[in-house]
Amino acid sequence: MMLNMKNTKNAGDFIFGRNSVTEALKLCPQRINKIIILKSVTNDPKINEIVTLARQNRVVFQFVPKERFANFTEFSHQGIVAYTSPVSYLDIDDFLDSQKQKTGYSKIIILDGVEDPHNVGAIIRTSACAGYDAVIIPSRRNAQVNATVEKTSAGAINHIPIIKVNSLSSTIDKLKDNNYWIIAADANGKDNYFDINYTDMNFAIVMGAEGDGVGKNTMKQADFIVKIPMLRNFNSLNVSNAACAIIYESVRQMIESEKHSV
Amino acid sequence: MMLNMKNTKNAGDFIFGRNSVTEALKLCPQRINKIIILKSVTNDPKINEIVTLARQNRVVFQFVPKERFANFTEFSHQGIVAYTSPVSYLDIDDFLDSQKQKTGYSKIIILDGVEDPHNVGAIIRTSACAGYDAVIIPSRRNAQVNATVEKTSAGAINHIPIIKVNSLSSTIDKLKDNNYWIIAADANGKDNYFDINYTDMNFAIVMGAEGDGVGKNTMKQADFIVKIPMLRNFNSLNVSNAACAIIYESVRQMIESEKHSV
Repeated sequence: MMLNMKNTKNAGDFIFGRNSVTEALKLCPQRINKIIILKSVTNDPKINEIVTLARQNRVVFQFVPKERFANFTEFSHQGIVAYTSPVSYLDIDDFLDSQKQKTGYSKIIILDGVEDPHNVGAIIRTSACAGYDAVIIPSRRNAQVNATVEKTSAGAINHIPIIKVNSLSSTIDKLKDNNYWIIAADANGKDNYFDINYTDMNFAIVMGAEGDGVGKNTMKQADFIVKIPMLRNFNSLNVSNAACAIIYESVRQMIESEKHSV
Repeated sequence: MMLNMKNTKNAGDFIFGRNSVTEALKLCPQRINKIIILKSVTNDPKINEIVTLARQNRVVFQFVPKERFANFTEFSHQGIVAYTSPVSYLDIDDFLDSQKQKTGYSKIIILDGVEDPHNVGAIIRTSACAGYDAVIIPSRRNAQVNATVEKTSAGAINHIPIIKVNSLSSTIDKLKDNNYWIIAADANGKDNYFDINYTDMNFAIVMGAEGDGVGKNTMKQADFIVKIPMLRNFNSLNVSNAACAIIYESVRQMIESEKHSV
């Protein structure tokens, strides 16, 4: 049963108050990006229940000072606000199960620290256009799916599964166990992104933070590190554009290889 | 001599008042995106001088009702505001002259109705990274270079010439006379964008409006109309991402062809 967010006490991207947040956690935790709880209300049994539910469902929660509630003063928030997503996130295990029925290879995008929701939306949009199978978003240090992402994606969030994971490192290990190759995009990569053959493997392309790129630990797990060549003394491609260059190179290769195999 | 915009009566992207606008028109008209003039002050000799200067320098001007000045009430605008650009636009003829000294082919991007300044900035950024020679922007029905474009371009506006033109149609004719091939991107294109050989010609890639695509007249002038293949029942790539896919395909081809020719 899906919780109809429209009928709960909410203002767009948020759910306010102990009962509403508890209800949301019970009915569809996969729609919650994170929960913030006022520091001073920690000894409340209702809050304790929320914390337990959040833990069980792997929903991120934080105890925060009252300043963090400054934008919510017009709502009766009772010291608790859940940030919600316009789509249900898919579980990584459910996704991997679903891919077992698939003919052909799987193609996914992993975001590792992309903080601008416009970039997240644009990357989801390109991934959907390119027929990719999923976008993986870590639950921390990356923009979650919210109204801005939905808008920038031009509705693509409803056309491609979005997987939220708490640990990117163990998710990548899981992907590797399931026969995926990990391709990290980095300005210092050895190969150009078009030197990889995208047509004969399951793969996950990792796009990193706008400034810092892919995280160090993720880099260590990568099977390939690819760069996008820069032809002028100006080295700074927008991350959604960089993602598009790589994604559409894989599309080009797939279409070309189908042409040759006919 | 460059006009130092910082020293004139301005607020970021604007210059206010008859004397300041006249001075700017005399010293660097190529830094002015457009001028708006209050309808009721048309019989002023100073305004007449401004109109003459604007005409001579091909700067767009409009007589507008006072509602258009609502955002400028805190400034002493005297019924006239010039919208300025953070960079000097290059003249198309000067650009074509400069390209005659160039070895190898020229590669340019033409924007035809891209109205979101974030997209304009991102396309300029990608064009700079890819070593393109210029970006052409029409003076009407397209976002001009302003502070938002500058920011989204991550400074790229200072690394690639930006050409502003009043008539896209005659500019394209001029490019054709100078041996450029015109490649329009359109969802209904016959060829995939990667079926074009970008390595053996001067070319201009035309990217159209976010919703409507490349204009009808421009389409008629195009030598090639290319599409970006869509692999899911979701057909809506962001225009800056679409531009990036095409631009970087041309980069890929150039690097591959250099490899083979060594």
